[in-house]
Amino acid sequence: MWIQRELTLQARPRGFHLVTRELEQGVPELAELRVGMALLFIRHTSASLTLNENASSDVRRDFGSWFDQAVPEDAPYWTHSLEGPDDMPAHIRASLTDSSLVLPVRDGRLALGTWQGVYLCEHRDSGGPRRLVVTAVGEPARPS
Amino acid sequence: MWIQRELTLQARPRGFHLVTRELEQGVPELAELRVGMALLFIRHTSASLTLNENASSDVRRDFGSWFDQAVPEDAPYWTHSLEGPDDMPAHIRASLTDSSLVLPVRDGRLALGTWQGVYLCEHRDSGGPRRLVVTAVGEPARPS
Amino acid sequence: MWIQRELTLQARPRGFHLVTRELEQGVPELAELRVGMALLFIRHTSASLTLNENASSDVRRDFGSWFDQAVPEDAPYWTHSLEGPDDMPAHIRASLTDSSLVLPVRDGRLALGTWQGVYLCEHRDSGGPRRLVVTAVGEPARPS
Repeated sequence: MWIQRELTLQARPRGFHLVTRELEQGVPELAELRVGMALLFIRHTSASLTLNENASSDVRRDFGSWFDQAVPEDAPYWTHSLEGPDDMPAHIRASLTDSSLVLPVRDGRLALGTWQGVYLCEHRDSGGPRRLVVTAVGEPARPS
Repeated sequence: MWIQRELTLQARPRGFHLVTRELEQGVPELAELRVGMALLFIRHTSASLTLNENASSDVRRDFGSWFDQAVPEDAPYWTHSLEGPDDMPAHIRASLTDSSLVLPVRDGRLALGTWQGVYLCEHRDSGGPRRLVVTAVGEPARPS
Repeated sequence: MWIQRELTLQARPRGFHLVTRELEQGVPELAELRVGMALLFIRHTSASLTLNENASSDVRRDFGSWFDQAVPEDAPYWTHSLEGPDDMPAHIRASLTDSSLVLPVRDGRLALGTWQGVYLCEHRDSGGPRRLVVTAVGEPARPS
């Protein structure tokens, strides 16, 4: 049983945002899978996905601080600066995290750990809405 | 044909540990797949997975040195310090490597390159046992 | 419907190279899938894959500059130096990007965003040809 849906996440400010619930609600057909895999795929190169701690907003803020320092806007070696100072760091930060995230499905839900959540990593100052393709496959709960 | 198993890796010290054989032995049903995909998924946010060189233990030690320097414990910008100085660096290091790793299956085995092995990346000083969900799907060696 | 093919990418100089078209042409059977997933897997630990901007070659050059600075060849803490100064940085850089990349398939094509392309990240000075295993699964365009 195959599921494929295009989802749009509303525009968010630069930073790391918890979107687990929004993604699960956007693909209600996951509930029909007893066991399977779900591929979350973001169709952009200056925003990305990652899995991390779903409780403290501190953690998401500290993600921002680390990436700001490790991939700085004002590095002397950037040559691709046409689209603004936040563009080239956004591309690097996207590749350090994930464009595609494959998650296990069990009993109709993403089988995440207790403290795991999906982050939308918005690396641009004004990235706008972000489009995802969610593709899932699995064994239905009841033989179809 | 779908396979799904929860595995527990015993507690290991902080560092990078080769666990390929342990994972393969934990999912003996892989032997029944002629062609397929296996999703290794770790249900934590301060330990992670990656693929890298399976021969020299030097390589795994140097991984530790690089991550200690690139994501330092004493960075002045950490605000999430409640769970100890190794916690916030562990979250960042987990997102720089992988929570989920999808590997090809061929003739009943993970189709890794000669020098590739799966690393458990333990980012905490005392992380304890780590739980994984392994989900695999494929075409059986003989029609079932 | 399962597809599995081994592909060889010709030797390329150290750097980030766009290989989307070459990979798609190497797996013409993708055209038969209405919906599915494709796993691109590189069987090496000093070259890797990532998704990023497919237009400006500036972006790919700046990737090289960032990785050269963030994972330097002359770091004092490397102990694994037997295979040359570019080897240990190559291993770290490979783990910061991806050995395996799962992409959605829709209507017989990789469902990438307009600006997304697959990069071969060649981290060695003379890495030679690189081998990939491409595994895809999906629902055929017409019932088989």
